[in-house]
Amino acid sequence: MSYAHATRLTTTPDPHQPDPADPVFALHRGGKLETALRCEVKDARDLSLAYSPGVAKVCSAIADDLSLVDVYTTRASTIAVVSDGTAVLGLGDIGPHAAMPVMEGKAMLFKAFAGINAVPICLDTTDADQIVEMVAALAPTFGGVNLEDISAPRCFEIEERLKARLDIPVFHDDQHGTAVVTLAGLTNGARVLGRELGSLRIVITGAGAAGVAITQMLQRAGVRDIVVCDRQGIIGPERRDLPEHKRQLAATTNHRGLSGDISRALRGADVLIGVAGGSVPESAVARMALDAMIFALANPDPEVHPDVAARHAAIVATGRSDYPNQINNVLAFPGIFKGALAAGATRITEGMKLAAAQAIADCVPEPTPEQVVPSPFDPQVVTRVADAVAERARAEGVTRSR
Amino acid sequence: MSYAHATRLTTTPDPHQPDPADPVFALHRGGKLETALRCEVKDARDLSLAYSPGVAKVCSAIADDLSLVDVYTTRASTIAVVSDGTAVLGLGDIGPHAAMPVMEGKAMLFKAFAGINAVPICLDTTDADQIVEMVAALAPTFGGVNLEDISAPRCFEIEERLKARLDIPVFHDDQHGTAVVTLAGLTNGARVLGRELGSLRIVITGAGAAGVAITQMLQRAGVRDIVVCDRQGIIGPERRDLPEHKRQLAATTNHRGLSGDISRALRGADVLIGVAGGSVPESAVARMALDAMIFALANPDPEVHPDVAARHAAIVATGRSDYPNQINNVLAFPGIFKGALAAGATRITEGMKLAAAQAIADCVPEPTPEQVVPSPFDPQVVTRVADAVAERARAEGVTRSR
Repeated sequence: MSYAHATRLTTTPDPHQPDPADPVFALHRGGKLETALRCEVKDARDLSLAYSPGVAKVCSAIADDLSLVDVYTTRASTIAVVSDGTAVLGLGDIGPHAAMPVMEGKAMLFKAFAGINAVPICLDTTDADQIVEMVAALAPTFGGVNLEDISAPRCFEIEERLKARLDIPVFHDDQHGTAVVTLAGLTNGARVLGRELGSLRIVITGAGAAGVAITQMLQRAGVRDIVVCDRQGIIGPERRDLPEHKRQLAATTNHRGLSGDISRALRGADVLIGVAGGSVPESAVARMALDAMIFALANPDPEVHPDVAARHAAIVATGRSDYPNQINNVLAFPGIFKGALAAGATRITEGMKLAAAQAIADCVPEPTPEQVVPSPFDPQVVTRVADAVAERARAEGVTRSR
Repeated sequence: MSYAHATRLTTTPDPHQPDPADPVFALHRGGKLETALRCEVKDARDLSLAYSPGVAKVCSAIADDLSLVDVYTTRASTIAVVSDGTAVLGLGDIGPHAAMPVMEGKAMLFKAFAGINAVPICLDTTDADQIVEMVAALAPTFGGVNLEDISAPRCFEIEERLKARLDIPVFHDDQHGTAVVTLAGLTNGARVLGRELGSLRIVITGAGAAGVAITQMLQRAGVRDIVVCDRQGIIGPERRDLPEHKRQLAATTNHRGLSGDISRALRGADVLIGVAGGSVPESAVARMALDAMIFALANPDPEVHPDVAARHAAIVATGRSDYPNQINNVLAFPGIFKGALAAGATRITEGMKLAAAQAIADCVPEPTPEQVVPSPFDPQVVTRVADAVAERARAEGVTRSR
């Protein structure tokens, strides 16, 4: 799962040597993705229709009306999964080659869960200007762009500039996918606890891609009391030398003006959201309010071990598949892109993301402490998310007229 | 077929309106290519092997040894089909969107004929520097680059710079694919006529991508007497204001110092190769030597109509599938890339291209005037070309050591 990739702190690659008997390496041999034909090329007639001379007619039609590229090629159902390999899983800056298995895996999930053709694009540059230029130049080929595992703060600038420049959906999943599923889980968690979402006191540890996006999304959903911590502690006005994205957090969160370490932030808090990796001590968690929620999303090692969390919280969620309440981005990104592409959306708006979160939450009609989000394999999720996102795109009028 | 794309003279898009009943448009609806999974993702165990947490092991292994990207991802069997849409078929500079159906078709042919995964990449820039930077940055993702339908003279510079920079095969098919298949056809044509290839007097009309590449390849195959014509006539030392690639042609061809129009060049010539589009008058063709060969490759309208050519030549080849001797690049590029990828070749050398041409020629054990090249659907072609190319790559030592 890709939540919290960009905010993990460890960067030392694990020196695993490939063991051919290891089922992971056996499965990866030769790769996980391939291309396939949607029509036959078995004789001269096939060739004359699918290629020369027939194809010239299709080219001419598109040259006359560019929008036809989305009718007569796979562009409208194909996206690029773009990374520069700087923030891969918990491994950090391992480079574009080593990022390939994750991007291939992500592309595979787009196909398996949403029928979307996705192509891994691992770029051999970490220069934000170059990445923006390159991805913008790919727009004739792809109907959308999923940015992945690009380190903060460059990921913010790259996404914003591409969104401003392109009329196709651009979505940094480490930010928004994580935020959408987290919001879905909190929505149902609040229902279970009989609380109003907006009244919750929420602490987020991790001020990278996921932390920033979760903060913004929770604020849009009405949450008023959010305190964000990074490795140095609570982010607030007294902190000096903050980078721009943390200065914005300082200005828009922590209205009670807290300072100090995370244990100060957690005193009386209703919710802890961990997207930083590392570890939050039990003594700090023990100070949270009654009926707390702990979403410890670092994977495979949550910031608070689920067994520890359960001693102090009514609802515990992690990124792991072997505990209840797995906050898995695959609940969001397939349906979000499916809906956006189906509607011919020119962007993925805040409203579309909120609609996706609500649709995910609604897939669990009777949430319980052990089930605030649906299973990643619940087949209704992608359809409901896609429908909600497409409907919202049309309602907001952010669709191409064809 | 893609021969001679880059040298066609017409650039006016044909204002075809899409007719849903037209089988070409019906076939193209939704596109011709898609992605497919090479493994299943149906439950949590699948996900844990193909994606998180398992995938991290594969990423770490590649980070430790970059060459493993070609073992544990699809990179080694996946190429990019890159165009900027400036010289598409005979349509000219129709832009990257309108080029998509051709690049998708080309990608389809790579899969259908050679099992190679190929991804269309249509770039929204015509700046040579930007194209070089972008394609170079894609190298972590792709095991090879097929450049396609990029106009001359930028195509020469772009290919040369990418070849110098990358350690994966880079191949401009409009140049070298056309040259390889043309050489194969001439080799067998010379056999049929009992002539030595090197002794033939050859006239090439068209000094763009294909014309330049055919000239160079024929010279490497031992042909000594080549005269190249463009729209202004014979290219020679007296021509002023020639661009660099034509100055090089002037310096290396036309040793008899001819000047004037193509009819002057054709007087006594053994071979006419047309890769220019337009029309060569019958009166000029009539001046050719006895037992001439005419390869009129513009498609769909050959420079000399095959019926006219047959009145003055012993062997006639075209780009068309409805006449004998179709000079079709699909005889070359699938096998060339298949062999190069199989050998882990770092480039496609002149020797590998000559080996490909010979392998294609050898697929016709008893050539006749009506069959100097194999059928595009002859299943032995790709295997024999791939084997010859891989063997040559290994012999030349231009392979990655794994």
